[in-house]
Amino acid sequence: MTYTLILLRHGNSDWNQKNLFTGWVDVRLSDQGVAEANRAGELLAESGLKPEILYTSVLTRAIQTANIALDVADRAWIPVKRSWRLNERHYGALQGLDKAETLEKFGQEKFMEWRRSFDVPPPVLADDAEYSQVGDERYADIDGELPRTESLKLVIDRMLPYWESDIQVDLAAGKTVLVTAHGNSLRALIKHLDGISDGEISELNVPTGIPLVYELDENFVPIKPRYYLDPEAAEAGAAAVAAQGGKIAAK
Amino acid sequence: MTYTLILLRHGNSDWNQKNLFTGWVDVRLSDQGVAEANRAGELLAESGLKPEILYTSVLTRAIQTANIALDVADRAWIPVKRSWRLNERHYGALQGLDKAETLEKFGQEKFMEWRRSFDVPPPVLADDAEYSQVGDERYADIDGELPRTESLKLVIDRMLPYWESDIQVDLAAGKTVLVTAHGNSLRALIKHLDGISDGEISELNVPTGIPLVYELDENFVPIKPRYYLDPEAAEAGAAAVAAQGGKIAAK
Repeated sequence: MTYTLILLRHGNSDWNQKNLFTGWVDVRLSDQGVAEANRAGELLAESGLKPEILYTSVLTRAIQTANIALDVADRAWIPVKRSWRLNERHYGALQGLDKAETLEKFGQEKFMEWRRSFDVPPPVLADDAEYSQVGDERYADIDGELPRTESLKLVIDRMLPYWESDIQVDLAAGKTVLVTAHGNSLRALIKHLDGISDGEISELNVPTGIPLVYELDENFVPIKPRYYLDPEAAEAGAAAVAAQGGKIAAK
Repeated sequence: MTYTLILLRHGNSDWNQKNLFTGWVDVRLSDQGVAEANRAGELLAESGLKPEILYTSVLTRAIQTANIALDVADRAWIPVKRSWRLNERHYGALQGLDKAETLEKFGQEKFMEWRRSFDVPPPVLADDAEYSQVGDERYADIDGELPRTESLKLVIDRMLPYWESDIQVDLAAGKTVLVTAHGNSLRALIKHLDGISDGEISELNVPTGIPLVYELDENFVPIKPRYYLDPEAAEAGAAAVAAQGGKIAAK
């Protein structure tokens, strides 16, 4: 029995365009992001892969991406599960800050450490800060666990239990699973699936809006290398993500 | 404890515009239907009512309506449950037929009986007919129960168990529930909630795209009359639905 898992990173958001740290701030897709989600739906339809259940984070940009892509692929009707455990990395006190200003203020070393180190979270976001999630009703049930900042390591720590308790169960039932989420929650899952080391994961960039396919054995181990439904666009997209980081860091 | 239940009928679809019997055929919203769904989202946002869980049928036009409305109301992130038990009435062998031609072929008496009688279903849809749902993977799990035609009575028979097993449970947990569905599955629920007689339910027309609110006591009995979030538009909309039926029948 082979299991099929499809990962999809949401498209460009309003805050990507403004060059702000986003994290758990619930911004919407930009027009470009909407176009990327439409393209993802076309790629799904062309591939012949048929998602049978959808997982999303509880952030609007991932949900919009999934709704648009599945609508285009004529599969809007599949069951949906959402979880905060698939959310983007919480960016702590950086949420809402301009990336270039942050670099200038804190210096390149600190900046790159927050962006790319495995286990160093940014400073904690104060509960009364403008972009805090304290009091947001969608997180009312997770009280004690609500993050105020996260490293990639902390994202893995809160994502993996859900991977095991829910997503694996649907895969084991033979369902083709689509997970629509974020750069860092997907990097966390990819790191786990492909056994990427703590050091090497910083080099991995997931392009937006291009479905990434895993074929897994019964132990959820890949039986062949992961692949994008549009490999050329994926390469260009990943390079663009990498260049974006470099460009800011080099400013 | 008072429970809040919001019902929303999907907007105009491609086949409404072509004047075809739709039933379980999975057509999409027309541009007008998309605009109605946007308006529904604005009405929800203005009302201050905050749906905490969404129920939809497994038909794309209801799901599109819900996705658009919740996105506009900034509540795309709430949990979602879908069920075929909220589908539109199965229109049997009439599915895909032109309404005016059907009237001409079968005569006004038969036509009105199929459209408005409580318990007379149209002729059965053959399993190999173009618009049959046999073999549609979204119904793979309901095998023995897949309808080939339905009266309103049969819609009630398959909708009420789900109302009791799922929707009531979320209401009883104190959640504001949004149900986005169809003219006949919503009429079935309204008939039940308001104790409308088999004879009188034929007079009830639910307008498209206008949220309808129930406040219920702990026994799921309305504590005040149901109301629309835009009563004037609802009246005009219901009159338009009624006139549409009359116009065809009078041709």
